[in-house]
Amino acid sequence: MKINVLDTTLRDGEQTPGVSLTSNEKLRIAKKLDEIGVDIIEAGSAITSEGEKEAIRQITHQGLNAEISSFARSLKGDIDSCIDCDVDCVNLVVSTSDIHIKYKLNSSRDEVIENMVSNIEYAKDHGLIVELSAEDATRTDFEYLKKVFQTALDTGADRLCPCDTVGVLTPEKSYDFYNKLSFLDGPLSAHCHNDYGLAVANTLEAIRGGATIIHGTINGIGERAGNASLEEIVVALNNLYEGKYTTDIKINQLYNASKLVSRTTGVYLQPNKAIVGENVFAHESGIHADGVIKNASTYESITPELLGRHRKFVVGKHTGTKGLKNRLKELGIDVDKEQLREIFKQVKDFSDKGKCLTDVDLQAISDKVLEKDMKQKVNLEEVTVVSGNNVTPTASVKLKTGDSEILESSTGLGPVDAAYNAVKKCLNEFSDVELEEFHVDAITGGADALIDVITKVSLGDKVISSRGTDSDIIIASVESYLTGVNRLLEENDEDL
Amino acid sequence: MKINVLDTTLRDGEQTPGVSLTSNEKLRIAKKLDEIGVDIIEAGSAITSEGEKEAIRQITHQGLNAEISSFARSLKGDIDSCIDCDVDCVNLVVSTSDIHIKYKLNSSRDEVIENMVSNIEYAKDHGLIVELSAEDATRTDFEYLKKVFQTALDTGADRLCPCDTVGVLTPEKSYDFYNKLSFLDGPLSAHCHNDYGLAVANTLEAIRGGATIIHGTINGIGERAGNASLEEIVVALNNLYEGKYTTDIKINQLYNASKLVSRTTGVYLQPNKAIVGENVFAHESGIHADGVIKNASTYESITPELLGRHRKFVVGKHTGTKGLKNRLKELGIDVDKEQLREIFKQVKDFSDKGKCLTDVDLQAISDKVLEKDMKQKVNLEEVTVVSGNNVTPTASVKLKTGDSEILESSTGLGPVDAAYNAVKKCLNEFSDVELEEFHVDAITGGADALIDVITKVSLGDKVISSRGTDSDIIIASVESYLTGVNRLLEENDEDL
Repeated sequence: MKINVLDTTLRDGEQTPGVSLTSNEKLRIAKKLDEIGVDIIEAGSAITSEGEKEAIRQITHQGLNAEISSFARSLKGDIDSCIDCDVDCVNLVVSTSDIHIKYKLNSSRDEVIENMVSNIEYAKDHGLIVELSAEDATRTDFEYLKKVFQTALDTGADRLCPCDTVGVLTPEKSYDFYNKLSFLDGPLSAHCHNDYGLAVANTLEAIRGGATIIHGTINGIGERAGNASLEEIVVALNNLYEGKYTTDIKINQLYNASKLVSRTTGVYLQPNKAIVGENVFAHESGIHADGVIKNASTYESITPELLGRHRKFVVGKHTGTKGLKNRLKELGIDVDKEQLREIFKQVKDFSDKGKCLTDVDLQAISDKVLEKDMKQKVNLEEVTVVSGNNVTPTASVKLKTGDSEILESSTGLGPVDAAYNAVKKCLNEFSDVELEEFHVDAITGGADALIDVITKVSLGDKVISSRGTDSDIIIASVESYLTGVNRLLEENDEDL
Repeated sequence: MKINVLDTTLRDGEQTPGVSLTSNEKLRIAKKLDEIGVDIIEAGSAITSEGEKEAIRQITHQGLNAEISSFARSLKGDIDSCIDCDVDCVNLVVSTSDIHIKYKLNSSRDEVIENMVSNIEYAKDHGLIVELSAEDATRTDFEYLKKVFQTALDTGADRLCPCDTVGVLTPEKSYDFYNKLSFLDGPLSAHCHNDYGLAVANTLEAIRGGATIIHGTINGIGERAGNASLEEIVVALNNLYEGKYTTDIKINQLYNASKLVSRTTGVYLQPNKAIVGENVFAHESGIHADGVIKNASTYESITPELLGRHRKFVVGKHTGTKGLKNRLKELGIDVDKEQLREIFKQVKDFSDKGKCLTDVDLQAISDKVLEKDMKQKVNLEEVTVVSGNNVTPTASVKLKTGDSEILESSTGLGPVDAAYNAVKKCLNEFSDVELEEFHVDAITGGADALIDVITKVSLGDKVISSRGTDSDIIIASVESYLTGVNRLLEENDEDL
């Protein structure tokens, strides 16, 4: 059975506290949602502001395949705003629980229905598709809810959505609830919130109960604990229900969509977020890594290929010798049995100190065990920086390689930039190493805190990450940069 | 019915790629778990390393109330390591699915049982409680699984745990699966993984099916998409099952425990993480905030009090006038109707530009509308910094207040520290403003990226956050600092 997907990242998702998108950002996300096969895009709430109206209008005028919808309260003014934006559909929301009717609306059950009828009629008269959402439906008197929905259908509503506004359904109750509503002669949408971490499960059970449309957001963003996570629902339907349910979503583009949304909204994901988190295809523990190397399905029920992603092995305290050997091989380091045992021991010691092992650490350990000559090819002799509000940030850098010294100076947008530009000038004289990325971890504490700088440098198709730590951000940055350069030159056995 | 809680943050949780805890960190978390009422603490996997053994031993010798358990494969050496650590219980894991038996163990069904029997006997002979975990149980031939469990009980195992190792259960299947095992004459544990975002739902359905012990981790950390989130399960059992199930967990300490684990492991949470995320009690949208102000239960099914937390209102694009007025009141700003309307309009304009509104921004907007004198009391005339690897970071700062200029210089651990020390010296001459906190958001992109610095300054019991943004970290830092100082002096109407 085809399940229709309504994405509300741009409406319920944007209501995440602290999130605010420009109309161009909304448009980019809407295009991506269309591209990955979303059936209905809830583009926003037209009444919110002039900017919001403009954003929705831009989306409706794009000629996307998806139906475009806007949220509206049961008020003529809200519907007029939607009409102004040329949307296909209005998500008309009426509160149906007594607690909402009494405390929020200060109204009565009869008034709510009267009001709804006139607004459905108004929206239909203006050619809109109407999805009638009953807010807080899961805490609504059930007989009254049925009356609301039956009246809505009789008045011309096209779809019905009983919302689990505060996330109080359990999987069991969700199945029952939707099942008892499935007698209604119109498509049912599931709209679940994640207050107890159950939004995805409740949505899946709603489908079993009779819902044929799901509401979700990319990454599960939204008010409070957010909405049902679209990517989790879609992949679960694809993998766990023996082909009973299908969607039009292009699963191998979900990771991209997730990245776009987290970048644009600034709502970053925890590494263990299902489906799209950074750790989902990472393996550290000895037992797991060993199993995955032998046959990936031992510890993966989702293949990285399905999501267009890659598997990675991380070395740490729980790494076994097989996982370690695999990682060393990936880094191009060949070891015999004895050397492997010694590196393994040192990795364990390192991790027991609570330190997180980076590739650079692992290489340093291996080099020591393999007794490789660790003489640095490029040494920092001197770096000096001047900066200020009336001073162009300026740096001089002196590097020593072999017997020769290279001295360069440069300006930059800030002191670190100036120092990097000077280092680059020095390096240009003897190597093609390129700076690919510069990252500083968040600094918390005081202005005298230790600063952790991670740099990515490349030479040809080799890319290496390295780290520098100092209480002076300039020193940490330059050290991190040069550590990477030395490592790359070593790898390439470039003799200077 | 009392549900027993087994926490595996220190074992499955620590297997999160990149996480490695020292024995002291493990001990701190174990003590916290004991304090919040966890029944069984899986403290680690004793065979992993010498450091791990030491950590587990430290925990078992604490005299905690909780039973202390260690993971062990079905190998004598693993069990010996557990015995060495004086644990109460061993979590003895045998692989039962054909895919694990064939590809991982290269063994046979009969061998697995034989081996299990001898190791249960060995562990029981050494006085250990034995929880027998069937790894990948949910992909195991069901008749074989029953045989494994029946044999385990007959041999003396105390508890049984069929693991959903790769997270393939659905809520419906979870109920059935556990229900079909509930004929067994021993307590059943639910151990669910979150690959499809269903771990919490599957655990709850396992309980309905007959499980009486739940396995979870704080914040749901663990391999891949992690384990079932302990705090979500416990709060759901407390709030959604009409008192049918109880646990001994002190719910109002879960937030603290979550903070401890995220700080210690470095696995930070997304703001919309259920129960413990930063946004769970934050309200921005006009409709929601309005409802919550009138009656919190309209949009909250979990009270902040239950978790020992606080509600907060965030101002942004979706804020209505009622939410805005409430936030202004919290900030001590009184406005009339006309002023409120004007501030409201400017907040919407601000947010339409995709900017996230901070309290400082809100105060700046309000001040402008209220026509407050926004003349800065302290102006930055000059800042100059010199730094380098052979140079002690040194800064000079000139501030102007009223007609007088103050010039100071200082050294520091880095260039920002030097500049801050010089600013502090200048300020000391006329005010008691203290620097409380200095924070720099992670910098990603290049060395020329914009840098966002947030500073907290205090005067007496007033604390204010302010922000500075520049491509020069020194300028951004000093500006952020002085913005806060000006705001504080303004607030206090200190005349200089």
